[in-house]
Amino acid sequence: MGNSELAFIKAVAAMSPSHAPGLIRGIGDDCAVLSRDGDQVLLITTDTLVADVHFNLAWHGPYLLGRKAAAVNISDIAAMGGKPRYALLSAALNDALAEQGLEEFMAGFTAMLGEHDVVLIGGDTVAAPQPVFNVTLLGEMAAGQVRYRSLARLGDEVWVSGFLGRAAAGLALCEKSDQLSDRFAELVSAHLDPEPRVALGRLLAACDQVHAMMDLSDGLATDLAHICRASGVGADVDGRRLPLSATLKEAARYLQCEASQWALSGGEDYELLFTTAAGTGTELAERVSRELGLTLSRVGRITADNEVFLTEADGGRRCISFQGYEHHLRPAADSGRRPPDKADL
Amino acid sequence: MGNSELAFIKAVAAMSPSHAPGLIRGIGDDCAVLSRDGDQVLLITTDTLVADVHFNLAWHGPYLLGRKAAAVNISDIAAMGGKPRYALLSAALNDALAEQGLEEFMAGFTAMLGEHDVVLIGGDTVAAPQPVFNVTLLGEMAAGQVRYRSLARLGDEVWVSGFLGRAAAGLALCEKSDQLSDRFAELVSAHLDPEPRVALGRLLAACDQVHAMMDLSDGLATDLAHICRASGVGADVDGRRLPLSATLKEAARYLQCEASQWALSGGEDYELLFTTAAGTGTELAERVSRELGLTLSRVGRITADNEVFLTEADGGRRCISFQGYEHHLRPAADSGRRPPDKADL
Repeated sequence: MGNSELAFIKAVAAMSPSHAPGLIRGIGDDCAVLSRDGDQVLLITTDTLVADVHFNLAWHGPYLLGRKAAAVNISDIAAMGGKPRYALLSAALNDALAEQGLEEFMAGFTAMLGEHDVVLIGGDTVAAPQPVFNVTLLGEMAAGQVRYRSLARLGDEVWVSGFLGRAAAGLALCEKSDQLSDRFAELVSAHLDPEPRVALGRLLAACDQVHAMMDLSDGLATDLAHICRASGVGADVDGRRLPLSATLKEAARYLQCEASQWALSGGEDYELLFTTAAGTGTELAERVSRELGLTLSRVGRITADNEVFLTEADGGRRCISFQGYEHHLRPAADSGRRPPDKADL
Repeated sequence: MGNSELAFIKAVAAMSPSHAPGLIRGIGDDCAVLSRDGDQVLLITTDTLVADVHFNLAWHGPYLLGRKAAAVNISDIAAMGGKPRYALLSAALNDALAEQGLEEFMAGFTAMLGEHDVVLIGGDTVAAPQPVFNVTLLGEMAAGQVRYRSLARLGDEVWVSGFLGRAAAGLALCEKSDQLSDRFAELVSAHLDPEPRVALGRLLAACDQVHAMMDLSDGLATDLAHICRASGVGADVDGRRLPLSATLKEAARYLQCEASQWALSGGEDYELLFTTAAGTGTELAERVSRELGLTLSRVGRITADNEVFLTEADGGRRCISFQGYEHHLRPAADSGRRPPDKADL
């Protein structure tokens, strides 16, 4: 992250009050939280996708780009346990997204919204040198069930859903598109068409033993460090427990990369990362497998260390806090800073 | 407006349901409206500002740019009569906005928020080839007082606040910066640092005789046509009644432009445009002058014509619907399309 981004975050945090009428939670989690009606709260999140920074139209066709623009915001609602409800879309367009592409983008965007019963309620469109999409997503849920990053407790188990590292591997494969193969379709799809874990988030938020929760957008190492910092705790990650798909391992051999590095530092998995009271996660995982067909993996535990440590297969242990995702794509006019997918506001 | 923008708006409108739980108003006005608590509603609006399309850093310093990014969104809340409450900011930054400039932007942004008791509750930051700012603003008000574009009635008087055309003249002067002079400071300031009419909007929304309302972002001709189309009516504008400041007339002579054209087709005035029951506006204007020190001007009346007509000084009458603002700034990679400040979502 460059100095400008850090300065921005610092300035925003300094200028944002923690108390205001109707405000339950401001900056610092996946969504802001506002009181709504009775026990219900509104969750609000906003994300910007910039061409050549967050997506490359050369391989990210407009239909899937529309799906992803909706999915990454829906994922922020899922990350706190909410039900996504309303979306606003601002699109800055250039000739690279001409009429046909735009129709496909909108078809993909509204298809993803429709899968989660979200309705488009507003937005605007402007012209720009390169495409930029901003999505604001509003969700709702019961106030008592909102899951914050700050709720991890000493001794908690650390869990993740699905497989890790697939989106980062998929991006690496897209960047070598001359070497693409159908056998890696799972990974490319994870990068191009992520699936927000809304049903899982809602199920977990309804369980008392689930404490802290967020979505994995910047990689396990960085995102778990966010939970630890917010909760005033640390974590031990067991490197042998990282859920790596067979295809991911094959791609790692093919590209001569480390699969575990993608899993720890790769971004945009949009799986859920959460902690559970000690001894309670296994039964929950069985229920999730039965009801949602999703695999949960226990990857570590919460400690008093204040940092995230990784224990590797050979027993070595090293600090891995904040080793998160850095985009491979780079803005044309940028001097080399490689921003995370989204900063920690 | 280019074909892409039109296609986008068409697609969005087609894909946006008018009915959903909790949704009072979706696309088609200055804000979307959601039910909140009891009789209270939430207003939501989002706008994107793109460098070299909506602002030019050569003359629009970061402090005033921050103020304007907040102001144009606050204006959308004011346009429906609401009280602005919460803001989210997404900033796509490049080296042109280095640390110092960014701090100044944030200082201006939060200063404008502070003037209207708005708190910053979230956002994100990314890198981009050129700066893009997206702001989402939430406001609140009593459900029964929300003023929509669709509420104009046959025989209504058409009113505007303040002076018209100043921001467009100010932009024209900035573009000829070698010819700038202190005597035009009023116009340059109207372009660089517009003032959202929040107090006025709230006062008007509390008056039963005020019917349709919106803010003037694309020029009187286009914005009044929006009201007419939404309400199924037409309007006659009296060209002799357009409120033109002495400085505007002087700038028109200086730049050899028509002051009335700026007033009709210039954008970004962020004054309020509204209709009142026949015979009731004058007393309201006196009250507004007394309580807020703001001048209101009756510029026309609502008719059954379905289009906006202008009666000129010589008695000539011509249709002026949708002759709105087109940005003078142009994106570098754009092939000549000049978008309106914001499309009609």
